Amino acid sequence: MNTELNKHPHRRYNILTGEWILVSPHRTKRPWQGKTEKNNQEKRESYDASCYLCPGNSRMGGETNPDYKGVHSFENDFPALLPSGPTDDFENGLLKAESETGICKVVCFSPDHSLTLPLMEVEDITKVVGLWKKEFEELGSKENINYVQIFENKGAMMGCSNPHPHGQIWSQRSIPTEILKKSQHFKDYWNKNKSSLLGDYLKQELELNERILAKNEHFVVLIPYWAVWPYEAMIIPKKQHQHIGQLNAEEEKAFAEIIKKLTIKYDNLFETSFPYSSGIHQAPTDGKEYPEWHFHMSFYPPLLRSATVKKFMVGYEMFAGPQRDITAEQAAHNLQELPDVHYLER
Amino acid sequence: MNTELNKHPHRRYNILTGEWILVSPHRTKRPWQGKTEKNNQEKRESYDASCYLCPGNSRMGGETNPDYKGVHSFENDFPALLPSGPTDDFENGLLKAESETGICKVVCFSPDHSLTLPLMEVEDITKVVGLWKKEFEELGSKENINYVQIFENKGAMMGCSNPHPHGQIWSQRSIPTEILKKSQHFKDYWNKNKSSLLGDYLKQELELNERILAKNEHFVVLIPYWAVWPYEAMIIPKKQHQHIGQLNAEEEKAFAEIIKKLTIKYDNLFETSFPYSSGIHQAPTDGKEYPEWHFHMSFYPPLLRSATVKKFMVGYEMFAGPQRDITAEQAAHNLQELPDVHYLER
Ligand SMILES: O=P(O)(O)O[C@H]1O[C@H](CO)[C@@H](O)[C@H](O)[C@H]1O
Ligand SMILES: O=P(O)(O)O[C@H]1O[C@H](CO)[C@@H](O)[C@H](O)[C@H]1O
Repeated sequence: MNTELNKHPHRRYNILTGEWILVSPHRTKRPWQGKTEKNNQEKRESYDASCYLCPGNSRMGGETNPDYKGVHSFENDFPALLPSGPTDDFENGLLKAESETGICKVVCFSPDHSLTLPLMEVEDITKVVGLWKKEFEELGSKENINYVQIFENKGAMMGCSNPHPHGQIWSQRSIPTEILKKSQHFKDYWNKNKSSLLGDYLKQELELNERILAKNEHFVVLIPYWAVWPYEAMIIPKKQHQHIGQLNAEEEKAFAEIIKKLTIKYDNLFETSFPYSSGIHQAPTDGKEYPEWHFHMSFYPPLLRSATVKKFMVGYEMFAGPQRDITAEQAAHNLQELPDVHYLER
Repeated sequence: MNTELNKHPHRRYNILTGEWILVSPHRTKRPWQGKTEKNNQEKRESYDASCYLCPGNSRMGGETNPDYKGVHSFENDFPALLPSGPTDDFENGLLKAESETGICKVVCFSPDHSLTLPLMEVEDITKVVGLWKKEFEELGSKENINYVQIFENKGAMMGCSNPHPHGQIWSQRSIPTEILKKSQHFKDYWNKNKSSLLGDYLKQELELNERILAKNEHFVVLIPYWAVWPYEAMIIPKKQHQHIGQLNAEEEKAFAEIIKKLTIKYDNLFETSFPYSSGIHQAPTDGKEYPEWHFHMSFYPPLLRSATVKKFMVGYEMFAGPQRDITAEQAAHNLQELPDVHYLER
């Protein structure tokens, strides 16, 4: 981009949501006297008798986990959504509500309590991808499930209450706000160009080759031009799949491989188990056609300067809009430079 | 509302932004094994020699603070926005950026390092309101300042790096995303009804009298029907002012009084100095008319269950949309019950 502009405060446009983000490249000079987080370096055992996700242990809801060997999913014991409930809506003047139903699941990535995605074998991450796909298909084919949100909160900093490697799936009747925004922008572009907005963006990024972190035959991971979180990254399939249900076995493995690559870079950045929330955005499962959609997986990691200093999305960010202190190019550069081998395995 | 629906997961509609929020009233039963925050009960002295905001001290940028007695504002030493810079925009295929300029200020609420808004006298909070008004008018009348965002990050949990009572003002050329959303909804309603969306909502809330926390002659504070944060609250002027520049002396005092009332309730809830980000949303300062706007001040506090357990807006919330565990009515009820005298002064 215009190098002059790049050194000064500027705004960048998110082509998928239509929203702007304020970038203040000069601001990292500011000394930090605020809150620091705990650097969680504690080594865990492969089995923890008090963990409600380890094989054979009892869960908070009273049930017992099977002695699972690979991946394992089950219905959340404290779900935010319930499969049934009142179906009437409510409107009174300017107050408006709707009933909501859904199914919440927990997905254990491994029986080994001590692992995280970057420390798992590609073969085992492929099983996680396989389970996501299976859950997406099963949940998505149910009558009142019109969107399936797959996500992971990693690390205590991201509200994760158990370090056992796991993610969640919340699937529901209504289509969530963030999906509606992206659907609109995918659709507008598709109607105009009969091609995928994200596919065309990916082509441009591959040509520019400035924000790419890694690629393989089927996937690319990059720092999007409009990244909000300091080291936000996006995994994009080269082929325009609307959802993960369309991945074949080879692509599933390639997806697993690129997840491992990215998360190793993350851990290597500050030599810590890098916290983040990740999620897959894909086409709704309401039975309609979504030829414009192009699924992708995003990672929103909060760390900014070190293993203990994070970016706070607070006052200005909550009331006006997102702001970041390092540019997407600086973030990409910092990650590109890092070795592909995990710091604990060197 | 429909009491049946109220006990089950449901979605509520935010009339100001057009976005939905997922409410899971049954979910507080879930045990919390995750991260807890430090309960900051430390008593501070009225003067701290190492504080860069105390009167007479030197700041991080090298300057010296005047020996101020009431309120005091100055330009941020590490601003996210700069008054000048390149003015060209940038577009290359699907990459799109714009230059951005602005002025960032810091507003000290009191010379006394040990205070917070709920512990200040109404008379002294009135001076804070007066300074916000003055800054709004001065900044807003500058040529390239089209929006003035006044906010406070209170507490280390909210990224505040100095406990000295202070807030910030970021003013800029472009109109931020959150303001554009609200402008649209205010305008649509105004065009249809020739009345203020928020004014009509306020009338309805006053009649229902379920979510009101406090009121005086000129202001009401309530938990909005569509609150996102557990104890989110909104201060609304009864008269439809577009911005704080329109407040008269009596209204300024009433505004200060209601800020004190709300923040005392907050501190009393968990007997802690309640963290939050607060901000004022008001009409842009681009010289256009905004007859539809109705200014208001919102508080977004993160604490959920206790002084140490907060709500994490992470995976699902980032990728799908906001979710809360207690209803707005439960939150209102919990705050309504509390005494109006600060727990430290009883
Ligand atoms: O300006 P401060 O207080 O140093 O910084 C704080 O508020 C800013 C505005 O909301 C945020 O961008 C920062 O992440 C936060 O730490
Ligand atoms: O479901 P968990 O892991 O207990 O909870 C975590 O993830 C949820 C989904 O993002 C959030 O609503 C919670 O605030 C967070 O603590």
